[in-house]
Amino acid sequence: MAQGEDEEGEEAEESEAGEAPVLPSGAELAAAYFRSWDNPTRHLPLLQDKALSAAWSAALASAPPGTFEGKTVLEVGCGVGLLSVMAAKAGAARVIAVDGSAGAADAARRVARANGLQDRITVVHGAIQDVDLPGVAPGGVDVILSNWMGPGLLGGGMLPGLAHAVETWLRPGGLVLPDTASLWAVGLEDREALQDAKKTWGSVAGVDMTAALAQVIQHPRLDAARRKAQLLTAPQQLAQWRTSELRTGAVVDPAIGAYARCPLRLVAEREDRMFGLMLYWDAAWTFGGALGPGDGKPAVRLSTGPTAPATHYKQLVINFPRSLLLAPGDVLAGELELRPGGTDPRDLEVALRLAQQGGGAAAGSGAVAPIVGTFRVPYDLA
Amino acid sequence: MAQGEDEEGEEAEESEAGEAPVLPSGAELAAAYFRSWDNPTRHLPLLQDKALSAAWSAALASAPPGTFEGKTVLEVGCGVGLLSVMAAKAGAARVIAVDGSAGAADAARRVARANGLQDRITVVHGAIQDVDLPGVAPGGVDVILSNWMGPGLLGGGMLPGLAHAVETWLRPGGLVLPDTASLWAVGLEDREALQDAKKTWGSVAGVDMTAALAQVIQHPRLDAARRKAQLLTAPQQLAQWRTSELRTGAVVDPAIGAYARCPLRLVAEREDRMFGLMLYWDAAWTFGGALGPGDGKPAVRLSTGPTAPATHYKQLVINFPRSLLLAPGDVLAGELELRPGGTDPRDLEVALRLAQQGGGAAAGSGAVAPIVGTFRVPYDLA
Repeated sequence: MAQGEDEEGEEAEESEAGEAPVLPSGAELAAAYFRSWDNPTRHLPLLQDKALSAAWSAALASAPPGTFEGKTVLEVGCGVGLLSVMAAKAGAARVIAVDGSAGAADAARRVARANGLQDRITVVHGAIQDVDLPGVAPGGVDVILSNWMGPGLLGGGMLPGLAHAVETWLRPGGLVLPDTASLWAVGLEDREALQDAKKTWGSVAGVDMTAALAQVIQHPRLDAARRKAQLLTAPQQLAQWRTSELRTGAVVDPAIGAYARCPLRLVAEREDRMFGLMLYWDAAWTFGGALGPGDGKPAVRLSTGPTAPATHYKQLVINFPRSLLLAPGDVLAGELELRPGGTDPRDLEVALRLAQQGGGAAAGSGAVAPIVGTFRVPYDLA
Repeated sequence: MAQGEDEEGEEAEESEAGEAPVLPSGAELAAAYFRSWDNPTRHLPLLQDKALSAAWSAALASAPPGTFEGKTVLEVGCGVGLLSVMAAKAGAARVIAVDGSAGAADAARRVARANGLQDRITVVHGAIQDVDLPGVAPGGVDVILSNWMGPGLLGGGMLPGLAHAVETWLRPGGLVLPDTASLWAVGLEDREALQDAKKTWGSVAGVDMTAALAQVIQHPRLDAARRKAQLLTAPQQLAQWRTSELRTGAVVDPAIGAYARCPLRLVAEREDRMFGLMLYWDAAWTFGGALGPGDGKPAVRLSTGPTAPATHYKQLVINFPRSLLLAPGDVLAGELELRPGGTDPRDLEVALRLAQQGGGAAAGSGAVAPIVGTFRVPYDLA
């Protein structure tokens, strides 16, 4: 037999899921994911992220008149219900708050009641793909709100659920907030973090564990840029998602089996060693273009980038297996693919291929082998 | 059909495992568990726990002559291989280090090589129940080492794997370290933590979230006792495991479907409100009784209790749904059952029933309803 036992097991899963490039969703994995949100304490970093809640508060305060008043609002992945309360306070006639975590849904229900909003907020427990919205017909939702963004933007795997909600429940011309989310990359000099790691693993209870570092480095981590000088290239926007245009069949591009395949072209701004990439995202609340550059009132924006005020999302750091010596003007070209995790679709897989082109510091040392690697971002990366 | 789809799925798993009351082990859940250990950084809290590594160092230094020299040692759940290196340095002829995490096994292999011990340490990747030990016959292991202990001692669910190793691989009269592990409970006054939680949830981005507290409280947490005065009763030993006597069929008692059912009898030492229980454990390295009270050399002990030096395990706090007013001498009687988690057997479920008997502060206010509840301790509780 050519196939191992494990492979056969996976094969069985896939055949159940049919031919369309849908995400596999083992019931056990889904249960484990939603259970991980049962304890409201798990929601605190999100709730206490001042930049994030300031963005939502500013957005709701900037909403064009009539956005919420008398409208039907859906919150996808409501957690303990903060945005639903905000929407109800902004005048929504009806808020349906959906969450797959029983504990979160229960807390959201209590919070709605304690804030005197139980008549306008209905909490529904279940994965958004599986539930009906009581008293709402398909296409009957005016506004969808969601904090769907995760590590590396797509980590946490909430995009397919949001797409389902948009496709199924949003009325034509309805609003999704935030409107857009963009993923960015910047070249990173990560010497200090590496030195710290070497120190940490140098002697553990008297045993030299430095050899474990190769594994440590291969795992993406959430970190914050320590100094602006760590950023070696200009930032590059990799991709942008317009949330009101999300469609279930297109979240994972059927042609490539990935969320997105992004050409990379990073230009070195000075001479230094590049240790990896820093990924981050920003989001905008434009109210379908009602706010924006063409208007007197600017759109509300949240950036999780290294030069923006800190958020609990920090930045996602992906270290290369080896560093590259760059000279100013050196070009790093390749592509980066973002895929649902192979074992758990809520994880994010980042497949990277990046070659150093011509010029500068690399010249004279002959051709430099490209950086190739696949990096897994667990949905609960912390 | 009376059964839902999920139940059928589980049924199929169980029938494969046979009739004995073994733990269900969904392949996806197992994969998720082992993957959670792939990044060596996840092992750092364990590796950097000074009390824990001091205990192991002291134990190996106190080992009776001949314990390791020339012997075959098995480490169950080796992580990045610290104990295996220690055992090889103590003279073991052969160390087999087993871990279900591919990342950990890979790191352990590199660590063994970097420490020049690749000829004596063999790292095997796989769940201990599934692997063969190369070059070792069943019953051919002299010493088993394991850091199997988790939150609430049994959280993490490594006991069944350790039992399998003892039953299958340990030679008759062989040694398991640590020798014993005991679980303890003490009554807790938890007012400060509750006040902190009330403050935290009092206003989140301008919305009163205090209503989420009922959920917060229902989830066990790892914490450290803030003051000795928080301990309201004498500690009670709930149960003790002698690791060399572990047998697969008895880890989960077939008669009750639980690890243990422990009678509780806590006596209040002063008047105060009891908010819950604090659970903790201790372990001893007696080398099969060679060290101990009857000997000149005392056994090595590690306590994770509230008055012992801090460990990364902290203590497990289980809050009651409501507090109980105690007077000195008041007795709280009932039982506590420890079970593998219903959804993931690596989680720990604590089922509690506790009634306040007679006397003191409760008198005059009539009968007090017993505290009844089931609390889930996720294997990765942090």
